Amino acid sequence: MKFAYFSLTLLLVAMPFADASDQSTAWRRLNIDNTLLMQLESGDVVIELAPQFAPKHVRNIKALVSDGYFDGSAIIRSQDNYVVQWGDPNFDNSKARSQGNAAKEIDVEFFANPREVDFQRLESRDAYADEVGFVDGFPAASDGKQAWLAHCYGMVGVSRDVASNSGNGSGLYVVTGHAPRHLDKNVTLVGRVVKGMELLSSLSRGTGELGFFETKSEHIEIENIDLLKDSDLADTVSSLQIMRTQSDEFKQHVLKRTTRTEAWFLEPTGRIELCNVGVPSRSTKIKN
Amino acid sequence: MKFAYFSLTLLLVAMPFADASDQSTAWRRLNIDNTLLMQLESGDVVIELAPQFAPKHVRNIKALVSDGYFDGSAIIRSQDNYVVQWGDPNFDNSKARSQGNAAKEIDVEFFANPREVDFQRLESRDAYADEVGFVDGFPAASDGKQAWLAHCYGMVGVSRDVASNSGNGSGLYVVTGHAPRHLDKNVTLVGRVVKGMELLSSLSRGTGELGFFETKSEHIEIENIDLLKDSDLADTVSSLQIMRTQSDEFKQHVLKRTTRTEAWFLEPTGRIELCNVGVPSRSTKIKN
Repeated sequence: MKFAYFSLTLLLVAMPFADASDQSTAWRRLNIDNTLLMQLESGDVVIELAPQFAPKHVRNIKALVSDGYFDGSAIIRSQDNYVVQWGDPNFDNSKARSQGNAAKEIDVEFFANPREVDFQRLESRDAYADEVGFVDGFPAASDGKQAWLAHCYGMVGVSRDVASNSGNGSGLYVVTGHAPRHLDKNVTLVGRVVKGMELLSSLSRGTGELGFFETKSEHIEIENIDLLKDSDLADTVSSLQIMRTQSDEFKQHVLKRTTRTEAWFLEPTGRIELCNVGVPSRSTKIKN
Repeated sequence: MKFAYFSLTLLLVAMPFADASDQSTAWRRLNIDNTLLMQLESGDVVIELAPQFAPKHVRNIKALVSDGYFDGSAIIRSQDNYVVQWGDPNFDNSKARSQGNAAKEIDVEFFANPREVDFQRLESRDAYADEVGFVDGFPAASDGKQAWLAHCYGMVGVSRDVASNSGNGSGLYVVTGHAPRHLDKNVTLVGRVVKGMELLSSLSRGTGELGFFETKSEHIEIENIDLLKDSDLADTVSSLQIMRTQSDEFKQHVLKRTTRTEAWFLEPTGRIELCNVGVPSRSTKIKN
């Protein structure tokens, strides 16, 4: 049985025998209490949240989602080789969307104890951190005492202004370009897109400063964002499975990506960089 | 005078006083003998070639261009977080495009002598190479004895099959995702997109294996590719200027990107990774 590991686009092909390995410890389903489903006209985007690192932000985002804050919100920014950002589409603050009972200000949240979160170290020389690896499918970094999430492609973070408590999850972004790792420990990361990334990364770039769309007509409407457990697509999407980064299969995946033994490679590097590892996913049901 | 360094989208804003520093050694014009202009319906893409590293391939690409090989060719692949590829749009080999007098097979070309090519070393721990830096605006790596180009965002390479001489420049690709540095020293890099990158990176992703478009109707036509000196846009495009990576201004640019002293940063990393440096460009005339 062959799985396509190298591209999100390829990952979601129906795998006829995948059900047979549901009991395997190599794969896990998404936790429907900690997964968001964003519905765009172009398709669905699935975001797995990371309460291990940002519990207050995740709780607040769930409160915003539960209040319908994002329903009818918009993608307002697409900066080439950087990020796509979404949230309140109103330039006029007097028309700002209601945030219900959600907290308006939350201080940045970065750190977890690397032992408590089961940090799986990767053998890699990293430009930014002493150690890098994975925690429950999320790329992460560590100095041995603290672990934090890393800004790889597909990671989702909380937009903020200059003040460290100026974000609350009502504005979110996803990395669509080369990993801007200088943002690590500067912006709160709250999750990762595990399906539908190509719908965000291929959006036309905004022509305003920092890639913001200059007019409302360029905004891409977000039909709604639901917690997966509250979505009528819960059954379908929850058939999406993520390879456990604690598993032997994941070690094999890393080895394969490091050694590149395919005949095509003339000089396999024998090295790997955190954001080039990729975390395999698969589905038994989803057909796009 | 403020230049926008952080995004290709922002770089091309008219700079009213830029002419005044034309004589400055900090900026150089493009060499119109080594620059390609690719015209798409959506706009122009400018590619600076790197004969310092791949002289045979660059010569062959210029022969193909001169024979009109790419005129009416097509973008045939767009793989998320990886590459966009173009060349012959015919799936049927019997309809293959004429390659004129161009060589049909060229062995891979990677290396230059780091002293001969004026390798400017960057202080950075790199996952793949002992040393990294820049050569004439191109991101590069070195082991002290040999230097080679690095697969950063926007770098252009020569598609090939398993055989090391199976590419000749008639198929080309550009990196549109996180730097696939494992391709370094495995595929011949021949240049870098210095304008119009967002036209390629924002293309819809192909749904076939490896992001190939499954039908000809999905192909994006390339109206033509000309050498800049033969293009009627030569005057306009040649007003595009690239910061010299040998200059003190570039050292300042790297320092600024490393230290991140802006108030927004809570914990500036003090480190930088090769593909996050970016080479500034500016224009006195181009208005998109």
